[in-house]
Amino acid sequence: MTKYVYDFTEGNRGMADLLGGKGANLAEMTGMGLPVPPGFTITTEACRAYLTAGTIPADLSYEVDTHLHAMEIAAGRKLGQVDAPLLVSVRSGARFSMPGMMDTVLNIGLTDDSVVGLAAWSGSPRLAWDSYRRLLQMFGETVLGIDAQHFAGALHAAKEAKGVTGDLDLDGDDLRQLTARYKEIIRAESGRDFPQDPREQLDLAIESVFASWNTDRARTYRRAEHIPDDLGTAVNVCAMVFGNLGDDSGTGVAFTRDPATGAAGVYGDYLANAQGEDVVAGIRNTLPLDRLADLHPGPYAQLLDIMRTLEKHYRDLCDIEFTIERGTLWMLQTRVGKRTAAAAFRIAEALHAEGVIDADEALRRVTGAQLAQLMFPRFDGNAAARRIATGVAASPGAAVGEVVFDSDTAVARAAAGAAVILVRRETNPDDLDGLIHARGVLTSRGGKTSHAAVVARGLGRTCVCGAESLDIDPDVRRFTTADGIVVTEGDVISVDGTAGVVYLGRVPVVPSPVAEYFEGRDVGDDELVRAVDHIVRHADARSRLGVRANADTPADAGRARRLGATGVGLCRTEHMFLGERRALVERLILAADDAEREAAIAALLPLQRADFVDILSEMDGLPVTIRLLDPPLHEFLPDRTELTAQAAVAKALGRPATSERLLRAVNRLHEENPMLGMRGVRLGLVIPGLYDMQVRAIAEASAARLRAGGHPHAEIMIPLIGDARELEIVAARASGILAEVAAESGVDLPLEIGTMIELPRAALTADRIAETAEFFSFGTNDLTQTTWGFSRDDVEAAFFPTYLAERVFTVSPFETIDRDGVGRLIGLAVAMGRAARPGIALGVCGEHGGDPESIRFFHEVGLDYVSCSPFRVPIARLEAGRAAVGDDDGSVDSR
Amino acid sequence: MTKYVYDFTEGNRGMADLLGGKGANLAEMTGMGLPVPPGFTITTEACRAYLTAGTIPADLSYEVDTHLHAMEIAAGRKLGQVDAPLLVSVRSGARFSMPGMMDTVLNIGLTDDSVVGLAAWSGSPRLAWDSYRRLLQMFGETVLGIDAQHFAGALHAAKEAKGVTGDLDLDGDDLRQLTARYKEIIRAESGRDFPQDPREQLDLAIESVFASWNTDRARTYRRAEHIPDDLGTAVNVCAMVFGNLGDDSGTGVAFTRDPATGAAGVYGDYLANAQGEDVVAGIRNTLPLDRLADLHPGPYAQLLDIMRTLEKHYRDLCDIEFTIERGTLWMLQTRVGKRTAAAAFRIAEALHAEGVIDADEALRRVTGAQLAQLMFPRFDGNAAARRIATGVAASPGAAVGEVVFDSDTAVARAAAGAAVILVRRETNPDDLDGLIHARGVLTSRGGKTSHAAVVARGLGRTCVCGAESLDIDPDVRRFTTADGIVVTEGDVISVDGTAGVVYLGRVPVVPSPVAEYFEGRDVGDDELVRAVDHIVRHADARSRLGVRANADTPADAGRARRLGATGVGLCRTEHMFLGERRALVERLILAADDAEREAAIAALLPLQRADFVDILSEMDGLPVTIRLLDPPLHEFLPDRTELTAQAAVAKALGRPATSERLLRAVNRLHEENPMLGMRGVRLGLVIPGLYDMQVRAIAEASAARLRAGGHPHAEIMIPLIGDARELEIVAARASGILAEVAAESGVDLPLEIGTMIELPRAALTADRIAETAEFFSFGTNDLTQTTWGFSRDDVEAAFFPTYLAERVFTVSPFETIDRDGVGRLIGLAVAMGRAARPGIALGVCGEHGGDPESIRFFHEVGLDYVSCSPFRVPIARLEAGRAAVGDDDGSVDSR
Repeated sequence: MTKYVYDFTEGNRGMADLLGGKGANLAEMTGMGLPVPPGFTITTEACRAYLTAGTIPADLSYEVDTHLHAMEIAAGRKLGQVDAPLLVSVRSGARFSMPGMMDTVLNIGLTDDSVVGLAAWSGSPRLAWDSYRRLLQMFGETVLGIDAQHFAGALHAAKEAKGVTGDLDLDGDDLRQLTARYKEIIRAESGRDFPQDPREQLDLAIESVFASWNTDRARTYRRAEHIPDDLGTAVNVCAMVFGNLGDDSGTGVAFTRDPATGAAGVYGDYLANAQGEDVVAGIRNTLPLDRLADLHPGPYAQLLDIMRTLEKHYRDLCDIEFTIERGTLWMLQTRVGKRTAAAAFRIAEALHAEGVIDADEALRRVTGAQLAQLMFPRFDGNAAARRIATGVAASPGAAVGEVVFDSDTAVARAAAGAAVILVRRETNPDDLDGLIHARGVLTSRGGKTSHAAVVARGLGRTCVCGAESLDIDPDVRRFTTADGIVVTEGDVISVDGTAGVVYLGRVPVVPSPVAEYFEGRDVGDDELVRAVDHIVRHADARSRLGVRANADTPADAGRARRLGATGVGLCRTEHMFLGERRALVERLILAADDAEREAAIAALLPLQRADFVDILSEMDGLPVTIRLLDPPLHEFLPDRTELTAQAAVAKALGRPATSERLLRAVNRLHEENPMLGMRGVRLGLVIPGLYDMQVRAIAEASAARLRAGGHPHAEIMIPLIGDARELEIVAARASGILAEVAAESGVDLPLEIGTMIELPRAALTADRIAETAEFFSFGTNDLTQTTWGFSRDDVEAAFFPTYLAERVFTVSPFETIDRDGVGRLIGLAVAMGRAARPGIALGVCGEHGGDPESIRFFHEVGLDYVSCSPFRVPIARLEAGRAAVGDDDGSVDSR
Repeated sequence: MTKYVYDFTEGNRGMADLLGGKGANLAEMTGMGLPVPPGFTITTEACRAYLTAGTIPADLSYEVDTHLHAMEIAAGRKLGQVDAPLLVSVRSGARFSMPGMMDTVLNIGLTDDSVVGLAAWSGSPRLAWDSYRRLLQMFGETVLGIDAQHFAGALHAAKEAKGVTGDLDLDGDDLRQLTARYKEIIRAESGRDFPQDPREQLDLAIESVFASWNTDRARTYRRAEHIPDDLGTAVNVCAMVFGNLGDDSGTGVAFTRDPATGAAGVYGDYLANAQGEDVVAGIRNTLPLDRLADLHPGPYAQLLDIMRTLEKHYRDLCDIEFTIERGTLWMLQTRVGKRTAAAAFRIAEALHAEGVIDADEALRRVTGAQLAQLMFPRFDGNAAARRIATGVAASPGAAVGEVVFDSDTAVARAAAGAAVILVRRETNPDDLDGLIHARGVLTSRGGKTSHAAVVARGLGRTCVCGAESLDIDPDVRRFTTADGIVVTEGDVISVDGTAGVVYLGRVPVVPSPVAEYFEGRDVGDDELVRAVDHIVRHADARSRLGVRANADTPADAGRARRLGATGVGLCRTEHMFLGERRALVERLILAADDAEREAAIAALLPLQRADFVDILSEMDGLPVTIRLLDPPLHEFLPDRTELTAQAAVAKALGRPATSERLLRAVNRLHEENPMLGMRGVRLGLVIPGLYDMQVRAIAEASAARLRAGGHPHAEIMIPLIGDARELEIVAARASGILAEVAAESGVDLPLEIGTMIELPRAALTADRIAETAEFFSFGTNDLTQTTWGFSRDDVEAAFFPTYLAERVFTVSPFETIDRDGVGRLIGLAVAMGRAARPGIALGVCGEHGGDPESIRFFHEVGLDYVSCSPFRVPIARLEAGRAAVGDDDGSVDSR
């Protein structure tokens, strides 16, 4: 027979899957000898059995009887006993916290008879009738499904009849009359009387908690939080204690450290003569926790002692709920507490310094996502800023700009040099241009997977979405806040995408001290910075994955080095063809014959060489992986549609067409699908002089650095290989040029030649490619595009919101590596590449190189390094270390 | 010790790898007791050892001594013996025939002394001195590398001195003097005397044949014919026999059947008093073989007997070379003979009818490529057509049209309704538009992998390229033939891409009787048609692969059925959105709101339903796989660049822009990479009403057919699935609609729902997809595009010629399935799909479904059917049967 019920004395915190988080922690505290009211937990397994069968498991009732009896003995009173009733609370408690999502029923055990007994026992008829009123209302709403408005209406009528406005103005008699009215409502609306059998109340409440697992709002919450639907909830049945029995009673919440900053010292709120609900309702002002030292020195000392015990026991920040009933302290809940990103680092570092946890454990306690948050600039918290709305924190950052209401205006104002915030009810693919040109985006509808959110994250734009209190009217180009403030086009607002808050006017932005520190600037003695530094250094010590940066310029390379990169994993040479050099590229493309083309290529040689000298100098002693030209040549020419329109207009007006030769070239190079066109190694094979020139520039730059006493370490990377033969041809030619330059300059140039693995076919034939390639760098952006058959530019805005809503993805495969598809190809290629060339160096240079989840995958699959944008280098260092120390932390999940 | 030399008595025809084709067959005939002059073969292994080391293997000379000695004993004379010399020929002979590509030296053994002996032995001083002259010339050119012009000049001078023009006008004395002159040339040009030691002549000739394997022209030939470079050639040393010893001597070639038509009866040419070279030189007219019956009845009877023996022995058409020396017949070569496509079918059928081979073997003897040739229309062979050039038969077909010299003119004339032939020296990507609009292409440069050839095959255009005798001058818009005929723009020519021939004027085109027969038209009693029919029917009986057709219209479906398709494997619904329905699609796209869009979709429903009723009716009883809409919607709108230019012109001229709303929609739907954009199931998910309408149309059409007593068998295919979840959503919705329509119409509609596997990710996650999909159809076009990361439209013209020339491919992966990459994904998906759903139906509907090589792969990988264009159905049926009977035919490779 399955055991469905555990007394608090039977469980422990390791049983959260079975007992839920709350139940497991109550049992843990009971086992520690802390003052927890007697109670028991009905398992998630019972819930799952109920959900599957549609009825309560047959044996459950007997088990509840047994445990209830034990509880009554411990309490010295019986459930609903007429003279001095034992009352119980029935609360949900799943594996993962789902605050407010499921049902709770308090004061179970009160009946028309026992309410009188409670009045006598407590000495407070008002407390007794108010407790009964609350039971009737909660039971009516949650167990019997009666609309809350009925009860609210009756309460309102009672207050109106007496001519008062506050609940507290109703006395015991008023509330007794109200309970009668509530019972009538229950009879009228549910067709049955409120059960006067306490045991029946309990059974129905338990079933109701089970059933609440599958309400729409619970499902929606789980979807948003990525909590599986098949876990079920446990049910905690606990003896009620009362914090509202007078001035010697009260209730509070506390943290063992400050969850906002991570500072040491207890922290919390206390409300005298009140129950937990009253704290949440915010009817009266709470006191800071330390005031309890004066009010109740005994329980306060006991509480501090318990908090020290808990933190030592849980080895982490704990948050707790407690009640003092007539001078006696009762612990009602504890758990590892949520905290801000800054607190996470400071607490982990402090616990490590205190010897509570080791350095690996400190590393496990923080995440790359938290570090990323700490590295964004923030609004100045001290500035007098008027908060006008809150919404979903959809894409982090701090953006200030003038409000615009449509894409065209966004583009026009941005072109005029303005910083703009695009404000829309919701966005759709038509708004893409506006999103691109805005600093930030604000919408009144949609959540983290809405179009605006997905696109903003993809573009790196700050976004707050779903700010539902805003009334946005694009037709008249203004929006109105809940407070009636009207913001019109051109007004300035400030959007905090990290916190999900919108401010009126220009809020000053302060840089992140963590980012400043990593950049090498002096930030004084900052405890947070010190914590981050220690933990990231420990991550470096543990990492198996190296972290390089994607950097195309000496400035980026230098920044990457300051941020801790151990090399450049991707130096894109196409950026070196822009600006004033465009003219040379145009000459190359428009060349009438081989000689003209070769002359244009030759003119690029000294410029490229100088670029490489600078980057190799900046990265002296560290590897720099230089990718030969990848994008199609037409990217260096004007837009075809615009040029065609210009030519048509010139013709229509009888003006000379100035650009006919250019237009012909643009038409010749036009491709239906440039992503799948003449790019990468295809360019290198069809226009041999191009790659030859680039290889020579790299070789000559290396030779120059060597002769200058430097330690250049360039690697030559060939993009878009699909077949080993492509690489063989280009590598042979490159080797020849390296040998030539070595002979010319009298130095050794043993540069490695390798390739991107960014096409499915390259992954599938990696063994053959590894016969020539000395290294692989996975280009996960292109590999994702070709494996899924969608181009990020084209589809992200158009259908990712639908795909996220329909759960085809839970996260964009361009953000986090798709393990099942792209990941499988990478795994194949790693195995085949290593089999063919055991020492082959393996890295990744797509944007996934900076994504925490993806870094864990790259660690698991056995790569040697990741390469990411300089900004994300510290984040990648942290995650590489976390991947190395693994998950096995023994701590309770704090989600 | 490796054995490098095999006597003709030691080898057999199974040893072609070692002895080359010629040597193996000479040994085979020797073993059969046929009259072959004595001789021996030096192996390809000796050649490879020579090529690797750069010198003749040490032991070879000893082995040659031994075998030469045996030969001298058999001949009764010694090499170069002064009184009656044994002369030998030294001929190359590789595994695969490379006619004329490598060296041959005849008459080895003649010296200043033995030439006198030969004159005496033969009774013909002229023959002796002519033989010596020829030896000197061949030896000088091939062994010593002397320019042929020197010898030609001396011969010319000799004739001029005597005042004659023909070689035959020189008598023995003249030739004796010429040999003296030749020896002087050898001394002057090579710095050495012609070797008077016969054994030294032989050694040098052998080495020269080895070395000739790696001449440029041999390499070029191998590249064109896909012959590996590392095989090497064997060398055959054979006693010379003389067909030029008088009227009782002669030489000839013969076939055991007519290699042009396949008709029964011997066939060949005879030249009296001549050697083999003279037949090739074409100096005198040959006689038909049967004239030999009168001239030499004995040898003729013997020859007929030998031919019967050989055909029975080889169980195939043989071609032979023979010489009659003073009334004695000698067999100098035999091999399985090359033949035309028509002959291949007729001979296979005849040999089967005669009981020489079984039906499986007959099936192995023909290919899908041959059947394809027989199905193209041809020019009327009886028409009086003037042949003006020949070139490479690069893309088959018969095209007639007016000559144009540039792409723009091709487009303009085609737009005006003219059929045009694009004539260029060579084509490049700029000519793509012209190639698209032309019926045929003719170039004067380049081979089968030239730009023109690759693109023409891709587009299905007739192409002759490399017609080098043409002098093409695009500037003055004309070309001149070798005969001085001038063809100017607008003149009509006829291009035979199957034969590689160009005719002046309009040659009548006759349809192929084979195609006519398959189409169900009466072609009378035609032996070829009967042979094709028998063999294809046998293929059907043996096939494990079914053959369906890609058909979008009732007409195509009907044609496919007549051609033997057992269903429609791909019915594309996008073609049903064209023509007058475009307006509805435009309404759908331009819809201002949901209601307008739904109205447009609803208006399409009855039209689609009618389409499906017609196709299901045409294919009654057979499966019809209907693919829901795949292409992006903007494909149904006008071109964006044109529309933009029009709008710009209208604006510049102050005219009203008529199409602004349209332009906005076109801009909204514009995609950088439509191949990777909003298409396939993505459309279905983002615009749900669209697929719902299509599914309803299919369901209602099926119901209508059922109620009319038909046997509809529609299958619903969802395109571009990348993840199982996409299919789950669409399939669930489709199932709901099928149930609805079934309920409405009162019939069962158990339609299967499946998917295309056309993205790498679909292949990699095929197990998950197979949980929902009831069938897979591999879309190999898209799968090739995404696996390789190139779009056919964009890259084929731009870099496939380079890739073919550089041997990255040996054939376009869009023509023949890429086994290593795309094939590997298909193999994975087949295994995973079958594991997840054992009975899952697996087919292929990309263009590879009609390609012979690819069909073999699909058979091997275990698919259930292929689907191809109706035209290719008979070809696919044949190849499916060939794949089933396998390769193991025991016959000699005839390449």
